[in-house]
Amino acid sequence: MNERVGDAESAGTIDLTARDVFAEWARATIRYADLDPNNHVNNGAINQFFEDGRVQFRTARMAPLGEATLAGFALVRYSATYRAALHYPGEVEIGTVVTRLGGSSYDLGQGVFQGDKCIATAEVTTVHIVDGRSARLPDTVRAILEAARSAGQG
Amino acid sequence: MNERVGDAESAGTIDLTARDVFAEWARATIRYADLDPNNHVNNGAINQFFEDGRVQFRTARMAPLGEATLAGFALVRYSATYRAALHYPGEVEIGTVVTRLGGSSYDLGQGVFQGDKCIATAEVTTVHIVDGRSARLPDTVRAILEAARSAGQG
Amino acid sequence: MNERVGDAESAGTIDLTARDVFAEWARATIRYADLDPNNHVNNGAINQFFEDGRVQFRTARMAPLGEATLAGFALVRYSATYRAALHYPGEVEIGTVVTRLGGSSYDLGQGVFQGDKCIATAEVTTVHIVDGRSARLPDTVRAILEAARSAGQG
Amino acid sequence: MNERVGDAESAGTIDLTARDVFAEWARATIRYADLDPNNHVNNGAINQFFEDGRVQFRTARMAPLGEATLAGFALVRYSATYRAALHYPGEVEIGTVVTRLGGSSYDLGQGVFQGDKCIATAEVTTVHIVDGRSARLPDTVRAILEAARSAGQG
Repeated sequence: MNERVGDAESAGTIDLTARDVFAEWARATIRYADLDPNNHVNNGAINQFFEDGRVQFRTARMAPLGEATLAGFALVRYSATYRAALHYPGEVEIGTVVTRLGGSSYDLGQGVFQGDKCIATAEVTTVHIVDGRSARLPDTVRAILEAARSAGQG
Repeated sequence: MNERVGDAESAGTIDLTARDVFAEWARATIRYADLDPNNHVNNGAINQFFEDGRVQFRTARMAPLGEATLAGFALVRYSATYRAALHYPGEVEIGTVVTRLGGSSYDLGQGVFQGDKCIATAEVTTVHIVDGRSARLPDTVRAILEAARSAGQG
Repeated sequence: MNERVGDAESAGTIDLTARDVFAEWARATIRYADLDPNNHVNNGAINQFFEDGRVQFRTARMAPLGEATLAGFALVRYSATYRAALHYPGEVEIGTVVTRLGGSSYDLGQGVFQGDKCIATAEVTTVHIVDGRSARLPDTVRAILEAARSAGQG
Repeated sequence: MNERVGDAESAGTIDLTARDVFAEWARATIRYADLDPNNHVNNGAINQFFEDGRVQFRTARMAPLGEATLAGFALVRYSATYRAALHYPGEVEIGTVVTRLGGSSYDLGQGVFQGDKCIATAEVTTVHIVDGRSARLPDTVRAILEAARSAGQG
């Protein structure tokens, strides 16, 4: 899983700091407990926002596949770029889009926003696992993911 | 389960499971990370919702007092009653009201709700501390807290 | 700050700020993410320490009962008194003891300590629920809880 | 900050799944609240373990620089690879090492371990910021970071 990481390669020409590339959106409120001693929202909270974006993506797009199918997917790589400080109180929106569709894995690109301001972006690789080994993405999954690619993608 | 833990005693005649007793409201979204192995929202998240309700109460009502005044208050006791399971995804509303105004301390009563359903209630005692000892509530604070008592209170 | 919140009442004559009253101990490390804007460990983290103490208590004492029996218990009331500020880094020990054994419910008393310094104490009421209603504690549970009462208790 | 990310490039020949490459170690306990609905430790907790490793690294190695110097550093990129499921209860050790030393930024490599088992690895890029722009690493910082490179590095 090392051959392709890095913003440029996996997200290709997709600019994850721009709201209009995303296929699905979630929303979350900032909590006082998210603040660190610098009075900034801790990166750990931003990581949770990205997680909520992914769960919302799965619920909205992949729920029809059923638990049995979904259980075979494992998040193996998470990469976040923190771009601006975030403050309490407030709320954020999280955009999610498919940025790569491989044989046995796929990548999601994500952005956390306050209005048009991009707070952080993330790229996440999920692998299809069967009997402890990576396995080809089922066609049903592939079709759903294909439909969640960015409009701007070739 | 009521014989000895009763809200009734400490909050007097105020029923914290009823939405209409509260003076101030906050709102929060549930996160996937809040879920425990039983697929319920963990009590720790509910405790964070109550905290957000108190911070929002302080911001809305007490901010004019300034940081110097507010620094002298310490939360010393927190008591929560968990009344219903909470599920993801979703959001909650948190109501907060002054339930007791003492010489050097005061109590807040709180409720976490989904719609009209009360998920949990809490009572919280805050003490005014000066030079490490409890001290009489300043009149400015007292006036603000008096205005945040429940409409139903004598 | 003691006139109305007194531990004394609910825990009877047991002083939860003294290490020697506890029947079971757990240990936890403080995390940077636990810090709030005042550079103190947030009360939410202290609430998690108490939770870990209870899970450890259940694992050590009640695991032989099996999941089917344990599923019928619900924590309904949690009350914490915060007694001293806690700083990062460091670790804490959490003591847990049975303080009350009722017909269909029981209370645990807990303390979070750094060395001999008591950071916070808590009291927690758990109810036995069958078919959605409180039900008499099974004799097996009662015997285990009886054995976990404080040595100092009559 | 895009020119160089990806395991291969920044960590070079360093294998972050091997305990012996690390320069500094921290330790953390798993909490019940870390568990997700699959009864696994949530990735968010693993992210917190890595954070604790970095804070411990900074405390152990960079504290002499003083707060004024340290305030000028911002974590801009965090990349984690999750390699094995983690269970409760238990504790983990977190290793941290400098994997790249650039003009105005540096990378840390990290690993979370249970015994010899590697649970996750991470790479983190920190940039020196002065007046809102990246600036050359001070020589004092550079010397400290140089001393925290892996023994195996050229």
